[in-house]
Amino acid sequence: MLRQVPINTLGRKRVVVLGGGTGTFTILSGLKKHPIDISAIVNISDDGGSTGVLRDELGVLPPGDIRQCLVALSNADDALRELFLYRFSNESLRGHNFGNLFLSTLEKIVGDPIKAINVAHQILRVRGRVIPVSRTPATLEAVLSDGSVLRGEKVIDARDSSRAPIQRCWLQPNVQVNPEALDAIKDADAIVIGPGDVYTSIVPVILVSGIAHAIAESKGKVIHVVNLASKPGQTDGFAASEHVKAVMNYLVPAMIDTVVINNTKPSPALAERYKNQGEHPVEDDLTNSVPYNIWRGSLISDEIMEQLPQDKIQRSLLRHDPDKLAQAVMDVV
Amino acid sequence: MLRQVPINTLGRKRVVVLGGGTGTFTILSGLKKHPIDISAIVNISDDGGSTGVLRDELGVLPPGDIRQCLVALSNADDALRELFLYRFSNESLRGHNFGNLFLSTLEKIVGDPIKAINVAHQILRVRGRVIPVSRTPATLEAVLSDGSVLRGEKVIDARDSSRAPIQRCWLQPNVQVNPEALDAIKDADAIVIGPGDVYTSIVPVILVSGIAHAIAESKGKVIHVVNLASKPGQTDGFAASEHVKAVMNYLVPAMIDTVVINNTKPSPALAERYKNQGEHPVEDDLTNSVPYNIWRGSLISDEIMEQLPQDKIQRSLLRHDPDKLAQAVMDVV
Repeated sequence: MLRQVPINTLGRKRVVVLGGGTGTFTILSGLKKHPIDISAIVNISDDGGSTGVLRDELGVLPPGDIRQCLVALSNADDALRELFLYRFSNESLRGHNFGNLFLSTLEKIVGDPIKAINVAHQILRVRGRVIPVSRTPATLEAVLSDGSVLRGEKVIDARDSSRAPIQRCWLQPNVQVNPEALDAIKDADAIVIGPGDVYTSIVPVILVSGIAHAIAESKGKVIHVVNLASKPGQTDGFAASEHVKAVMNYLVPAMIDTVVINNTKPSPALAERYKNQGEHPVEDDLTNSVPYNIWRGSLISDEIMEQLPQDKIQRSLLRHDPDKLAQAVMDVV
Repeated sequence: MLRQVPINTLGRKRVVVLGGGTGTFTILSGLKKHPIDISAIVNISDDGGSTGVLRDELGVLPPGDIRQCLVALSNADDALRELFLYRFSNESLRGHNFGNLFLSTLEKIVGDPIKAINVAHQILRVRGRVIPVSRTPATLEAVLSDGSVLRGEKVIDARDSSRAPIQRCWLQPNVQVNPEALDAIKDADAIVIGPGDVYTSIVPVILVSGIAHAIAESKGKVIHVVNLASKPGQTDGFAASEHVKAVMNYLVPAMIDTVVINNTKPSPALAERYKNQGEHPVEDDLTNSVPYNIWRGSLISDEIMEQLPQDKIQRSLLRHDPDKLAQAVMDVV
């Protein structure tokens, strides 16, 4: 008797993206246009802004990153996508985000974050799957090189270049992995890590027990997209090799197969703007002796992102172009 | 050449329900199970609770009554219906209702209440149509028999039996009627008025210019469902004939064809409970000499409705049974 193997009947490549923040939104928006099966495995340790309030007050999974991924993969009308991204500025709801309310309230009603996300999948006509890395929220903690301990992603996420570098992160408690995340990784043709804040978007996903081992056991290519800019308080002065090393530290026993990195400079107008934010373009110091393949190409978005008044956090002005980035990943896969 | 007339290809009866509050929810829930085309024409003068806050802060159409009608006619999963009725009790959102947020935010994004309601129709898989009587919110005002003027539905809705009776209501400003409401009335086989608070649910719909004339010009039967109980501050001591007269005063030049009235008594347990709320069962004093037909039958729900802790307003304990009421209307149509 022949061994039964799962067959992807459509013959589509299966691409898994790990993360949750703006960088994940960007890459998912680009990948959505390709004929592939997409899964986003999402961070569950966010505790800032509207997400943090809902998490505390309703006792639900932090909704913000999940919501962003759902919208990125949504094929619904613009109005519905805009609704799920809408941030209230009126008095009684100030700072809350509609999509966050949707997910959190529904989770509270049905008593299960996965069921709530599935309803959102249908309403937003999501192409692919958004999978929280765990059904249980966790707190991200970090010890700095001076021995001080930071508790909570919001605290760790603060843009403070003056503090000591982050030495090690962990999740508290040691939450159980969502089996659906393991299955997606196991079946993947490619596992894409980044772009995104190393310590507050990417590492918290990999930190969940079982994820790194599943990546190691998967036959899928492991692709790491290097960020365009360093982030104050997290990756100050990091060159590309240090970005890769920071991720690799947490990825053990898995390895990175290919690093995708931008090789063009931002326009002078853009460079001027982000310098004022304490961000610096990541220097490409990767040599031929590194133990992974390197894909180099133009990945920068020409669009200048404006900080919106309703943005609760300061966002990077330097962005990947969704289409260029997706094409790079497709080239590698 | 033959004159083109609109044809209801399915041969279904078209039933229009006027109102917006709990009574409208009840009758729509029952009518939904019948093979008819249903339109709900909804009050736009509510200004209490979450609805009032959103109306003020976001400058949108009061969402509460529209939301209730959408849920009543929804064929979506229980979780989604429950989501749209969900009232927050957590600190930062206390008193807000999810469905209200949905409608108001979407209206703000798309800039048009009708478009927002249409999106909700799809998501909630609404059977029939929910039509706000105007695209513009209005304020309900009333002069009492002692000459004092009350402004706002919330004020008029206060359960205060000690104040002078309501003499006359009007809307401020004189908002423009939604043409879709006129079309629905024009094409109707039946126009059902009530059950519901006479002065704060039913009359505000009829008060919009053009509605009463459209009812008069429609070939549809005009059916008035008499409330089960009087309401303190609005219809204290009103017998059935006075309920009908109060509605008729505003309906001119239209006439009522049939009055539907309950002829059974509530259970002693129920009677005991609502007596404490200042409500009294409406006495059936309708004689054979009235200028309309009378349908009499058992319409009371045996279920005892509990006041929920999150209910911002005191609700009537005495309710119509949705199925019995819908059957009564179907008998008349």
